[in-house]
Amino acid sequence: MALKQGRGSRIPSFLAMDVVAAAETLAATLPPEAPGLIRMEVGQPGRGAPRDAVAAAHRLLDASTAAGGPSLGYTQAFGLPALRHRIVRHLADLHGVEVSAERICITTGASGGFVLAFLAAFDPGDRIALASPYYPPYVNILTALGMEPVVLPCGPETDFQPTVAMLAALDPPPDGLILASPCNPAGTMLGADAFADIAVWCARHGVRVISDEIYHGLHYGPTPVTASAMEEAITINSFSKYWRMTGWRVGWMVLPDDLLRAVERLAQNLFISPPHLAQCVALAAMDCTDELEADRLAYRATRDDLRARLPAIGLDRLSSAEGGFYLYADLAALDADPALRDSRVFCRRLLEEAHVAATPGIDFDPVRGHDFVRFSYCGPTALMREVPGRIGRFLGRG
Amino acid sequence: MALKQGRGSRIPSFLAMDVVAAAETLAATLPPEAPGLIRMEVGQPGRGAPRDAVAAAHRLLDASTAAGGPSLGYTQAFGLPALRHRIVRHLADLHGVEVSAERICITTGASGGFVLAFLAAFDPGDRIALASPYYPPYVNILTALGMEPVVLPCGPETDFQPTVAMLAALDPPPDGLILASPCNPAGTMLGADAFADIAVWCARHGVRVISDEIYHGLHYGPTPVTASAMEEAITINSFSKYWRMTGWRVGWMVLPDDLLRAVERLAQNLFISPPHLAQCVALAAMDCTDELEADRLAYRATRDDLRARLPAIGLDRLSSAEGGFYLYADLAALDADPALRDSRVFCRRLLEEAHVAATPGIDFDPVRGHDFVRFSYCGPTALMREVPGRIGRFLGRG
Repeated sequence: MALKQGRGSRIPSFLAMDVVAAAETLAATLPPEAPGLIRMEVGQPGRGAPRDAVAAAHRLLDASTAAGGPSLGYTQAFGLPALRHRIVRHLADLHGVEVSAERICITTGASGGFVLAFLAAFDPGDRIALASPYYPPYVNILTALGMEPVVLPCGPETDFQPTVAMLAALDPPPDGLILASPCNPAGTMLGADAFADIAVWCARHGVRVISDEIYHGLHYGPTPVTASAMEEAITINSFSKYWRMTGWRVGWMVLPDDLLRAVERLAQNLFISPPHLAQCVALAAMDCTDELEADRLAYRATRDDLRARLPAIGLDRLSSAEGGFYLYADLAALDADPALRDSRVFCRRLLEEAHVAATPGIDFDPVRGHDFVRFSYCGPTALMREVPGRIGRFLGRG
Repeated sequence: MALKQGRGSRIPSFLAMDVVAAAETLAATLPPEAPGLIRMEVGQPGRGAPRDAVAAAHRLLDASTAAGGPSLGYTQAFGLPALRHRIVRHLADLHGVEVSAERICITTGASGGFVLAFLAAFDPGDRIALASPYYPPYVNILTALGMEPVVLPCGPETDFQPTVAMLAALDPPPDGLILASPCNPAGTMLGADAFADIAVWCARHGVRVISDEIYHGLHYGPTPVTASAMEEAITINSFSKYWRMTGWRVGWMVLPDDLLRAVERLAQNLFISPPHLAQCVALAAMDCTDELEADRLAYRATRDDLRARLPAIGLDRLSSAEGGFYLYADLAALDADPALRDSRVFCRRLLEEAHVAATPGIDFDPVRGHDFVRFSYCGPTALMREVPGRIGRFLGRG
């Protein structure tokens, strides 16, 4: 007999990963002399972990094969103490906040952090608010766990960020709120005042804040605000973006005191420990500031270049992109072929005809995302410079 | 105001991890001239990944720092195709089963596999049967996800394994059944006939089988049976045990066709991808047969030594331990100090007085586990040979 499937299995795909598959399939068919694909569909820095961090990995691997050397086995569920302490120093340096190392939990990427945070703080049926457009796994993980995402439609008038007025309109107040600043897909930020207003409102209404800070470090104006200093918030971060360690799967949370033991029990059972070598590489990466700050400047230059040149070829409605490495482009007023105003058509044809992979907005906003495309601009600078030309020719404006 | 916590946060600790913390605290206080701690509290092989697998990691890291080299970024959610195909060959070699590579999903350790399998196959409130004593995360992950573990008390008369009679006594039949052969903590196995009987009963009653095969490869008699050939079962495996890669966090599942797309969507959203370098190391480790088979023979010799010498010092009720690297010892008839018949007292004093770390049975069976201790015997052979002497002196039988 056919067996049942869990309701959790009916969440949608993370469409960006489907674009990855389409891009790789196309790449395999391209003749070697053809201009290469430009990959802008995922938030994956063009280069891997910094050089000195890779050197640390070599040293540790060498030690692991020596007699009596470390086996790189399980670590404590909350991770290596040295890394937890180093993160404390990082938070002091970047944000001027003082956080105890006890409150730092190393996770298996930010992804692992979301699962632990949601299970520790919420129950099935609980309502968790978040701005739309959003990073799709927020909604899909919540849904898989039986929780209810409450979407707050946001647009360029609030820089794609939520406001107290949107929260106050929810009756009853939600159980939780996910903040993301800089956010994915728009790269926009909450200003310090707006962040503080939301924090006060949440504290007053008993709303647990989950602050996704994965793009901290990658900002091109003011430093983004952290929720680490908030008494009851959970902040989630990762070594994937600023530190270029996507495939190593290591991140961290700053936890409120009341959830420390709960998250530790969940982490022991659901993950045992984060990857060991990845934690050591992350520790070394935190001292690779020169290499990583050079990247940040390169991203900023790419952002400035795209924001300057894309309007001339018809893409003139772009998110302000103050951080991260995403531009969210509104296609609704595109004056080329009207069929291209549908982001799925735009992305499919852009990949096939211009060999540029980008992600349709419906991944981030099923309702209004047909009008939007996300471009991830963290790829190699020279390739990024080719983007306006390729898209321009594609749109007949080259 | 104090904020709520999720029900998922109220699962128990994985106690073995608490014993790890106690052992490490004690180790830090021991004078350097004291005999070392013997660690038997976790299932962590004494050495790390095989030598040639570490060499592969060096090569890949070197390539990653070369211009245009691989960034070791996200892989596909189901993992590297080369590793998925290599696992197909492994299953053919070890078990003679033919499985399509489409059905292999690389996971973030077996832990990641359980989360994906449970969410894909079951709903909150669903009843999942399993033998007790059990690997604690089975019950704790199910509970955190709102599912209901249905515990089947098993003892030495069935080799700590479930039977069709136990399943038939459940009314209604459960939604799922977790099998583990060899199992943790007893190291015992289901024979081929018993396995087949259970499989037939489950198929007849619409019960989804989750087969934990993490100790496959580590067997000292007949090869254990795999559920990979069963049409509707999920098998879960890992590179942590036989391949000695605990801290790398990489494993795999063999999925039934009906769950492929569901698990892919869940994996994209909850994990994005398994750790990249770990997948490459696992691929290389699969060819390190000589080194790993030598380990298996060493484990077997240790097992034979412990089973021969422990009875003489009073530990005469031992599990049959046909696979894995665990012995489950019944303390109920211990004729030393009666206080030691409580496994928590036994383990605490064994650690303090004999400097041997072991895990109390209550981690694996909250009801009957007070009478049992689990010894993990995968540590260095020379240290393992000291164990009967140390425990004998501790029990006054040295």
